[in-house]
Amino acid sequence: MPALRQDKYKFVAGVDLGGTKIHTALADSRGGIVAEVRVPTGDHGPARIVAAIGRTVNEVGRMADVAVADIGALGIGAPGPLDIVRGVVHQSPNLGWYDVPLKEMLEQEVGIPVAVDNDGNVAALGELRHGAGRGNAHLLYVAVGTGIGCGLIFDGRVYRGAGYGAGEIGHMTLDPDGPRCACGNRGCLEALASGPAIARAARERAKKGGARAIVAAAGSCEAVTAETVAGVARAGDAEARAILAAAGRGLGTGIAAAVNLLHPAMAVVGGGVMQAGPLLWEPMEQEFRRRTLNC
Amino acid sequence: MPALRQDKYKFVAGVDLGGTKIHTALADSRGGIVAEVRVPTGDHGPARIVAAIGRTVNEVGRMADVAVADIGALGIGAPGPLDIVRGVVHQSPNLGWYDVPLKEMLEQEVGIPVAVDNDGNVAALGELRHGAGRGNAHLLYVAVGTGIGCGLIFDGRVYRGAGYGAGEIGHMTLDPDGPRCACGNRGCLEALASGPAIARAARERAKKGGARAIVAAAGSCEAVTAETVAGVARAGDAEARAILAAAGRGLGTGIAAAVNLLHPAMAVVGGGVMQAGPLLWEPMEQEFRRRTLNC
Repeated sequence: MPALRQDKYKFVAGVDLGGTKIHTALADSRGGIVAEVRVPTGDHGPARIVAAIGRTVNEVGRMADVAVADIGALGIGAPGPLDIVRGVVHQSPNLGWYDVPLKEMLEQEVGIPVAVDNDGNVAALGELRHGAGRGNAHLLYVAVGTGIGCGLIFDGRVYRGAGYGAGEIGHMTLDPDGPRCACGNRGCLEALASGPAIARAARERAKKGGARAIVAAAGSCEAVTAETVAGVARAGDAEARAILAAAGRGLGTGIAAAVNLLHPAMAVVGGGVMQAGPLLWEPMEQEFRRRTLNC
Repeated sequence: MPALRQDKYKFVAGVDLGGTKIHTALADSRGGIVAEVRVPTGDHGPARIVAAIGRTVNEVGRMADVAVADIGALGIGAPGPLDIVRGVVHQSPNLGWYDVPLKEMLEQEVGIPVAVDNDGNVAALGELRHGAGRGNAHLLYVAVGTGIGCGLIFDGRVYRGAGYGAGEIGHMTLDPDGPRCACGNRGCLEALASGPAIARAARERAKKGGARAIVAAAGSCEAVTAETVAGVARAGDAEARAILAAAGRGLGTGIAAAVNLLHPAMAVVGGGVMQAGPLLWEPMEQEFRRRTLNC
């Protein structure tokens, strides 16, 4: 990320731009969050989404009684491969974006300097500086949501690979003949353990006459989401628990492979899907411990 | 690796210590090899192996008419996790070594400074400085032999992870219910595509009445090696070709996962098993291209 030293400024804004929500926070010079707001991303084009981001920045300023002119800079994490220098999002299938000059558009919208980076990278930096990963030179952060991506910290710095292309842990093959992935391959981690993959596993059981409690909770087969599955699993349903456990084992296997390869000091797992709770985490951790050499 | 700048010295020696052979080379100040020798490692303890390495160093000196006293330093790549500062090999199952102070023993044997590093790391450095990987900031080197390991170059330097533990690509799970691996897990890349895994696949076919041409070439089921399989495959045997192709697809899948995660500028694949030739490479490359996002 281009230099965005938060201690240079009295306040900075941070935006997590996802396929389902825009999450904007205002932080003080020590990184303490003083206001935050979440709004749905909506199924809109770049111009309307950038305008919506601008409104969230005004909103967090208003909530904390800070003028936008006193916000020194804005950092935004966006999904998909992007050019961090020019701030262009090359390709974000979940947003339907291709070559969107996000930095330029957002600077015009809010009138303050903007730095754009991959959402996995900024989450990894956040965990390194303010979260679970403090003090670790080598850190792996895995985000499990609509997609599965990761951020890599080596020697205290974000590692981006050639052409900023690193971090595609979601396209590690776990089952060569498994379900079709959005990338065109079969059996990718993302096709087995992302939010949409969990929902799809439930819908496939429903088509065979199973997953009745899940379909009942969602109202229809088409309305099933990973959240539905997690809620029904917490209520005790065995099928929902089996679906979450299978996704958890997939995550454990994939993260173990990355840890065997990279041996970071710590792996941190986050993202909306992890809110499913221990019924997802525990099988993940068990499988992770089984399949790592030195953990 | 502790500083071992080869241009400081008129001559340096390099040793590849493997489970089956000791391969020693003498190089001039530009890295040009002036003499090399290979001897079997043999099933011996550390003291006899260190003495054998010492004899190879004398031998390459004699071949090139260079006194051992004119060899400025010796670098040795050893398999398994090790401490590069103290030069201690912690664990090398293929050698049966545990906590062997290789640097100290070898310095006493040859009387010149010794640097010890993981064989994958030194192979990656070799490819970076003198081989296929020249000019690439980020490089993945995969060694396919008795085991499967790798060396990682990020920003032109060897990446070792926490506690020098990185590089265990061989223990990436490709098939959660696959064959048992030496590490205790199932379906690791190493259990599917290493030399011993290729030989085992042939022996398992033989036990079911198949692989007759392979067993005939080896003399007995127990005598089958990956080399036997490769030779019979080159002669046209369909079963031997299928075994090599399956191992190749496993390699392609595993290397694709590492490339998706790390996006190096180049991946280089070496090691004795790759001498099986195109019947192994071609399925590997096909599967690699199928399962990578940006290659």
